[in-house]
Amino acid sequence: MSDQLIIFDTTLRDGEQSPGASMTRDEKLRIARQLERLKVDVIEAGFAASSNGDFECVQAIARAVRESTICSLSRANDRDISRSAEALKDAARARIHVFIATSALHMEKKLRMTPDQVFEQARQSVRFARNLVGDIEFSPEDGYRSDPDFLCRVIEEVIKEGATTINVPDTVGYAIPELYGNFILDLRQRIPNSDKAIWSVHCHNDLGMAVANSLAGVKIGGARQVECTINGLGERAGNCSLEEIVMAVKTRRDYFGLDVNIATEHIVPASRMVSQTTGFVVQPNKAVVGANAFAHASGIHQDGVLKARDTYEIMRAEDVGWSANKIVLGKLSGRNAFKQRLQDLGVQLESETDINAAFLRFKDLADRKSDIFDEDILALVSEESVAHEQEQYAFVSLKQHSETGERPQAEVVFTSQGQEVRGTSDGNGPVDASLKAIESHVKSGAEMVLYSVNAISGSTESQGEVTVRLQNSGRVVNGVGADPDIVVASAKAYLSALNKLHSKAERVAAQG
Amino acid sequence: MSDQLIIFDTTLRDGEQSPGASMTRDEKLRIARQLERLKVDVIEAGFAASSNGDFECVQAIARAVRESTICSLSRANDRDISRSAEALKDAARARIHVFIATSALHMEKKLRMTPDQVFEQARQSVRFARNLVGDIEFSPEDGYRSDPDFLCRVIEEVIKEGATTINVPDTVGYAIPELYGNFILDLRQRIPNSDKAIWSVHCHNDLGMAVANSLAGVKIGGARQVECTINGLGERAGNCSLEEIVMAVKTRRDYFGLDVNIATEHIVPASRMVSQTTGFVVQPNKAVVGANAFAHASGIHQDGVLKARDTYEIMRAEDVGWSANKIVLGKLSGRNAFKQRLQDLGVQLESETDINAAFLRFKDLADRKSDIFDEDILALVSEESVAHEQEQYAFVSLKQHSETGERPQAEVVFTSQGQEVRGTSDGNGPVDASLKAIESHVKSGAEMVLYSVNAISGSTESQGEVTVRLQNSGRVVNGVGADPDIVVASAKAYLSALNKLHSKAERVAAQG
Repeated sequence: MSDQLIIFDTTLRDGEQSPGASMTRDEKLRIARQLERLKVDVIEAGFAASSNGDFECVQAIARAVRESTICSLSRANDRDISRSAEALKDAARARIHVFIATSALHMEKKLRMTPDQVFEQARQSVRFARNLVGDIEFSPEDGYRSDPDFLCRVIEEVIKEGATTINVPDTVGYAIPELYGNFILDLRQRIPNSDKAIWSVHCHNDLGMAVANSLAGVKIGGARQVECTINGLGERAGNCSLEEIVMAVKTRRDYFGLDVNIATEHIVPASRMVSQTTGFVVQPNKAVVGANAFAHASGIHQDGVLKARDTYEIMRAEDVGWSANKIVLGKLSGRNAFKQRLQDLGVQLESETDINAAFLRFKDLADRKSDIFDEDILALVSEESVAHEQEQYAFVSLKQHSETGERPQAEVVFTSQGQEVRGTSDGNGPVDASLKAIESHVKSGAEMVLYSVNAISGSTESQGEVTVRLQNSGRVVNGVGADPDIVVASAKAYLSALNKLHSKAERVAAQG
Repeated sequence: MSDQLIIFDTTLRDGEQSPGASMTRDEKLRIARQLERLKVDVIEAGFAASSNGDFECVQAIARAVRESTICSLSRANDRDISRSAEALKDAARARIHVFIATSALHMEKKLRMTPDQVFEQARQSVRFARNLVGDIEFSPEDGYRSDPDFLCRVIEEVIKEGATTINVPDTVGYAIPELYGNFILDLRQRIPNSDKAIWSVHCHNDLGMAVANSLAGVKIGGARQVECTINGLGERAGNCSLEEIVMAVKTRRDYFGLDVNIATEHIVPASRMVSQTTGFVVQPNKAVVGANAFAHASGIHQDGVLKARDTYEIMRAEDVGWSANKIVLGKLSGRNAFKQRLQDLGVQLESETDINAAFLRFKDLADRKSDIFDEDILALVSEESVAHEQEQYAFVSLKQHSETGERPQAEVVFTSQGQEVRGTSDGNGPVDASLKAIESHVKSGAEMVLYSVNAISGSTESQGEVTVRLQNSGRVVNGVGADPDIVVASAKAYLSALNKLHSKAERVAAQG
């Protein structure tokens, strides 16, 4: 048994399935590059057959990422598998992930198939996939609630057909560590050819135990791959958190005795990138990546920490990418200092042109704000990097006024396909009036399903970062905008979301 | 062994130790009442000896709450214990919780005491406490990293002296379920009088395993009390989450075979109250209480859920207090409909006067906003309930203007000790200008350490709720304000924070 634990990240597939977390191709590409920097072993880039957009994302990531294996999810049918293989054609290392439900409940209610039909379909689809790609993962969906006898039969068969990884999902987050670990162990002991595949765990966090269940699958069950997401993103209560599983295995190496490849100093930048892109905030008391994860308050503890760091700290903040020293930049900081800071923050811009553009925004911000914190720089760069989306609309200027007893008024000037246009409206507040002013001209008819403001540094002097989530004809997009004026940040976020809706609609239309 | 699991909530003690989570007496009282509604068995109300403010909080809660046992934390010395006993004098059921560190690291570096000295102090302090109160809990701090031989010696002795609950904390969040469960089991088997006390677990979430560790302490170790907090609030990555532990034990009754008293339908209102009071957001993918915990996105899953609820749901949203039907109130809704809705949302206002005041605000809001959602009502009531704080300052009106290329300007009118005053300022944005306008008159010199906006319902038409956290001379307070205009909500939040700073300062001054 290898003493290497394979980290399989599914932020871009299972994570993206969270209501509201859908991402554009450019956003996914950016996150995939960050996952590569993290040295994730396998990146599940999407579900190629689910839509043309997802196919394009998998393809773009397969072409761009060289160090990690790129994986595409497929239902157990030839069409899905062919689409995955096609999207993965240019990958340095490709994996097809085939799944079919095996629990009585899912087979009967969802698939409306008999166990024998499911068995046959699993067998045939893995055989088909194995002829296209050498690295095949098979998942019996809702595996943990499946009949073990049936599961043994299916898994033995798909290993015979060439599946190289067997993943046992706790699809509904129902497991308990001891039970889940023994469930995996039992399968491995009963299946004669179980040693021909690497075993994998995939846990959901509905009862708050995804990390512990995954680790029990590893320690008790002998699994050597963990499926996880950045920030634990995922449907409902989400998936097992990458940052927690990695730091648990590293911190308790005495118990697990396993190595992981992850470059942990890129964890916090990855967490911020995923949070900013999806608009899913990370709570301050989130393990490893929460703002308070390494902060201490009570007098007793502070005293303890001063006397000996180990009294209350089992990990070092620097090791997961929290900068030990928050150098503050300002008006007089040069391009080199700015570039160095980006590097320290784990941000890699695509080109010198991008760095120059970000630096210009930095200087502009420094004119309005005396101290520039790391959070400001990250906001700035995140806004910079979304500027690559196809720009139908661009912000020009905003004027707004509110006074107790009167309706707030706003006027927004922006470009639409290069032409300057002007919208005016009132609203319940100045933000509402500004967004309605834009909408009065654009008439997108989109429904706003989320409006969130991230406080970036401590005070209102800092940049405000706003996420607007819009929904239209079943498509959901997130727009992000940053500005020291929260009303302006909101207008920019709204325009960015409209751009994404527009480019998604165009892509879909072009492909019929 | 009883098959009842005792739920010990320490939101008001260990939770409050999070940097920035400090609460006023009125806030703590409100949360304590909600914990009583939840039917929490034991409420740790504070650390009476740590400050006069904490003493007052414990005392007020001990007087107000009748159904739950009220507990006060104490270091292992006579003064701390006497203060706890005094604060708890009027409680229906009182518990003193004595702690002293027992790990080699903590004894040497923090306490600078020998193991024999610690042993002696533990013994004497439990004897002293037992003469004052019959219900004594003892915690060996950093117990999980302590030498088991020494721990056995200390615990056997304190049980002899009358400790009725023995709590074994994993203070730094270092444990793994299997190891922690066996650690507790080993102690219970080796200590001759272990059956004279109820065993308790207290886990931190630094590696994401607080819930699983606690449950292993219960299942493997035989503990029958779990210490936890609402939303997993607490230092660093926080404590074990009450909502997760309770729902795990309920959902997996087949495995645990334990009963809990908790009235789970009050969980979501409790979560919101704690989040609003502390300004600590709950991430959408948080188990049980996150906004997405019961939402499904992917086409496959939606289809599954429609076909049979059990395919993807192991708990029911209604059971934890997510309203199944979000009745929307409006302009024409009467006082009864409003009162009924409050009741359905688990909000209990203290008096008819409070309900009337909240109803007036509701009508005022309904004049400006067509649909009133549950979130609006909760925001309104939360603002209403903070209005009880001693009001040095009160909002009157606000006027602000911003325009691209110019400095944003604001003028805020508010009362200071009943006198109307007016402040004006510019700022980086309209919010910044408004808060500076207030500060220009008040001159508090407070530092803003957090500014956060909670998007309450989906769109910007809804009320914005703002939390402002101020710090001054070591005191930290959170102010909350709600209004459809985010600038006004910010000004209200700032004034509310100033009121709290002011009343805290007065209390401290009065007590010298």
